[in-house]
Amino acid sequence: MGASAGSVRQRGRERRNKRRQGQHGVTQVPFKPVRNPYPPVAILSDDQIEDIHRASLALLRDNGMVVLDPPSRDHLRELGADVCADSGRVRLDPALVEETMAGLPGGYTAIARDPAKSVEVRGDAITFASVCGPSFVSDLDNGRRAGTYAEMCDFVRLVQSLNVLHFDGGAGFEPLDLPPESRHMDMMYAQITLTDKSWHPCWLNSGQRARDVFEMTRIGLGLDHDTLTSTPTIMSGVNTNSPLVLDGPMAEGMIELARLGQPICLTPFTLAGAMSPATLAATLVQQNAEFLLGAVLVQAVRRGVPVIYGHFATNVDMKTGAPAFGTPEYVKLTLATAQMARRYGCAFRSSNTTASKAVDGQAAYESGMSLWGCILAHTNLVLHAAGWLEGGLVCSFEKLILDAEMLQMMAETLVPIVTSPDELGAEAFAEVDPGGHFLGAAHTLARYETAFYAPLLSDWDNFESWKERGSEDAARRANGIWKSLLAEYEPPPLDPAIDEELRDYMARRKEEIARTGA
Amino acid sequence: MGASAGSVRQRGRERRNKRRQGQHGVTQVPFKPVRNPYPPVAILSDDQIEDIHRASLALLRDNGMVVLDPPSRDHLRELGADVCADSGRVRLDPALVEETMAGLPGGYTAIARDPAKSVEVRGDAITFASVCGPSFVSDLDNGRRAGTYAEMCDFVRLVQSLNVLHFDGGAGFEPLDLPPESRHMDMMYAQITLTDKSWHPCWLNSGQRARDVFEMTRIGLGLDHDTLTSTPTIMSGVNTNSPLVLDGPMAEGMIELARLGQPICLTPFTLAGAMSPATLAATLVQQNAEFLLGAVLVQAVRRGVPVIYGHFATNVDMKTGAPAFGTPEYVKLTLATAQMARRYGCAFRSSNTTASKAVDGQAAYESGMSLWGCILAHTNLVLHAAGWLEGGLVCSFEKLILDAEMLQMMAETLVPIVTSPDELGAEAFAEVDPGGHFLGAAHTLARYETAFYAPLLSDWDNFESWKERGSEDAARRANGIWKSLLAEYEPPPLDPAIDEELRDYMARRKEEIARTGA
Repeated sequence: MGASAGSVRQRGRERRNKRRQGQHGVTQVPFKPVRNPYPPVAILSDDQIEDIHRASLALLRDNGMVVLDPPSRDHLRELGADVCADSGRVRLDPALVEETMAGLPGGYTAIARDPAKSVEVRGDAITFASVCGPSFVSDLDNGRRAGTYAEMCDFVRLVQSLNVLHFDGGAGFEPLDLPPESRHMDMMYAQITLTDKSWHPCWLNSGQRARDVFEMTRIGLGLDHDTLTSTPTIMSGVNTNSPLVLDGPMAEGMIELARLGQPICLTPFTLAGAMSPATLAATLVQQNAEFLLGAVLVQAVRRGVPVIYGHFATNVDMKTGAPAFGTPEYVKLTLATAQMARRYGCAFRSSNTTASKAVDGQAAYESGMSLWGCILAHTNLVLHAAGWLEGGLVCSFEKLILDAEMLQMMAETLVPIVTSPDELGAEAFAEVDPGGHFLGAAHTLARYETAFYAPLLSDWDNFESWKERGSEDAARRANGIWKSLLAEYEPPPLDPAIDEELRDYMARRKEEIARTGA
Repeated sequence: MGASAGSVRQRGRERRNKRRQGQHGVTQVPFKPVRNPYPPVAILSDDQIEDIHRASLALLRDNGMVVLDPPSRDHLRELGADVCADSGRVRLDPALVEETMAGLPGGYTAIARDPAKSVEVRGDAITFASVCGPSFVSDLDNGRRAGTYAEMCDFVRLVQSLNVLHFDGGAGFEPLDLPPESRHMDMMYAQITLTDKSWHPCWLNSGQRARDVFEMTRIGLGLDHDTLTSTPTIMSGVNTNSPLVLDGPMAEGMIELARLGQPICLTPFTLAGAMSPATLAATLVQQNAEFLLGAVLVQAVRRGVPVIYGHFATNVDMKTGAPAFGTPEYVKLTLATAQMARRYGCAFRSSNTTASKAVDGQAAYESGMSLWGCILAHTNLVLHAAGWLEGGLVCSFEKLILDAEMLQMMAETLVPIVTSPDELGAEAFAEVDPGGHFLGAAHTLARYETAFYAPLLSDWDNFESWKERGSEDAARRANGIWKSLLAEYEPPPLDPAIDEELRDYMARRKEEIARTGA
């Protein structure tokens, strides 16, 4: 794919020219905010929410958590936590947690380079971000492999092209051809320049990287330092090391960005049966305790910084220890965690997950389960919403398209039914007799273009036509669609001064890294 | 498949023997009722429900419906409808409809040959029935083709074997090697003898066929005539010919079974943009009008017979006229129709649909959309819940397995989270230190076997192991699973006297058909 990206773009230009001559490109929905107008599905009763809340407060009081970063421990000690410097164990008094968690902001506005693409992450808004984190990339042409920066840039271009995606979630996958110590900046550079949507930084595992994130964001959005520190907008993700450990580098990056006023998403990674107990209730307790300690730490650093409650709890296969994704347990934990997030007045993050190795039925039904869980829970930020495969080890170009179709369908499902007199159709029934046909009716023709959802990937044709075109399954068709999108990609406008400033910043920092190692 | 069924069963016996020696068979959930403990998702406001109700009453008053069966018109005339004998047009006064629809039974009990497999079709119970109606069968070995009775019997055996299915929905597909005039009895014979679950009759397009359904049911369940006529239990499906026509043979079969006290599921087949107007609201109006007229007719025949509100409304692709399935519109119509059914106090039926030609990602996400719609709507009877492909033209052996996995997952998702002290896990947290591992904890070991959902089809293994086993996608694995299930199939016990009586009945009727043509 990487090697052939140039030729794909060449073919694309030809195709684009054809399209201008009247041929059809890829059909998709316009960029738009998505909201869920229906009440969230509540899987826990109010009493059960309090059961979990109280049990997690008891866990933080009695067991506490190990916090490996000394400055983080200092922040917590100053706030009133019981800190053991030798073991790193931090215990929190329930009253301290309750006080600190009161009155937190309910979300933030994710500012995009194109202001029309800024979105709210709060309330009943649901936003979709592409996958981040995989070490491998795959497509049907070249299979599963370590990915390059050129391939990663193509993935970011597709995230820009797919209107249903609100964010670039983290540049798709790790470009393993770039040096690890400065790669985070190249990834951000691609996110900032190849899209005009909002983005999430990829790595936050040191204070200096957090400052790089802040500076490149500041340059990319054309903001000055003070404006950005008072505008929470670029959300960074922090995982705990479950059970009950907050890793040093993660905490270092987190407190730096909290200090700079940027929202923090705290996501315990609790695999029930391995990294948390083998019950959903206890997994919720542990997850809640880990979230609360992180949230308290963020507030200790800078009061009022938005904290997003991240969910990544699932279970392992008890026979093999393999993590399972998109399972009933995953959906139930999504619904329950969202209820906990609402209890604290925080925005909520979950994910679109699958353990499948292929872009097949399993990938679709596990992702469908995950996504319905996200929608029904009122997930404000669906991370990994498109492109995730194989438990997050792989970023798949075809899965990106499959997921985009599912996201489009779910977003459309949330649009209410209108029962105005015109929509109730008395006019149509006056036109067409029993046994007649509505295709040619004036009421139908007036709605011809927009009446129904038009698919991105689904094939609704009859068997014979489908067979004639090569009996392509959904994965094979997705392969053609991402190539068409890539071919049609046009870079969003970018102020050359911003581009220059980003390049200068990176050059300076890379030189510094070469000199000092950080 | 048909030709090789014998050899599959032979291999099965070998495998079964192996299994008795300690090898694992197919993992699946036990047979059990499913209920949705959460409130149904309401997509229509109460006012909108009344908008649709009133508009459909106006439609029945002003336009009415064409009823092609003269005895059905007589029943309606006797009840007080305005009937034009020349055109067949029947118009209903809104007050007459309101009166007739008051106080209907809210469902029925589907009695199975094995009483432990009888299930409720009402309230928050959700039941799953296999596909019925397709003209073609397909599997990965032999492709898409006209199916035989031997193959159909294998499909019914699989429906018996898959515990998540509550019913045999109609024997899977049409066995085109049998004569059409008596095929309905052979299909029922397979349903009654090869399963001990409840079943739906396949065809109801004449009064005599309705009597065959009744008699074979009576024999199969070992009931006398009077007991069965006072026990509504075998539900028959009737479609209207949308827009606004009730077909002659369908009505003839329906009024015969209503007379015999059996529940009737009335399902308008409204494809928005073709057989109904191109808006969801008007489609709901038309569907509701067609349902109401059918329900009024059933009540005119025999007051108090359960009527099930059937939903099969979806939309066409406006560019091609092709029907679309598992779309956002389909889900919205499912949710809305369920609300209309609840307004009349009727049980609700919907379906698991897809337009995909392959057992691929599209099949899974369209079915996933359909099924989540069914679950969220509180669908009492999910017809075509497993095995449907290609808009209902094809019954697929692999899709049966894919769907069974999805059904199992959704049923498990509906099981509430328990927050007892034991489940909250204080004991587990006392055992495992921060950074530790729960796999070996006593709290975990006590739950080892039953903690989490175990999949039927999903592969959670790592990439290397999966690749070593041949990189099989979900469809390919499903192929192996149905063969294993078929190999392990054991016929449920059947009283030889019942079998003999069924055979005698069929022989007598076939002789009669040969003589008289019906």
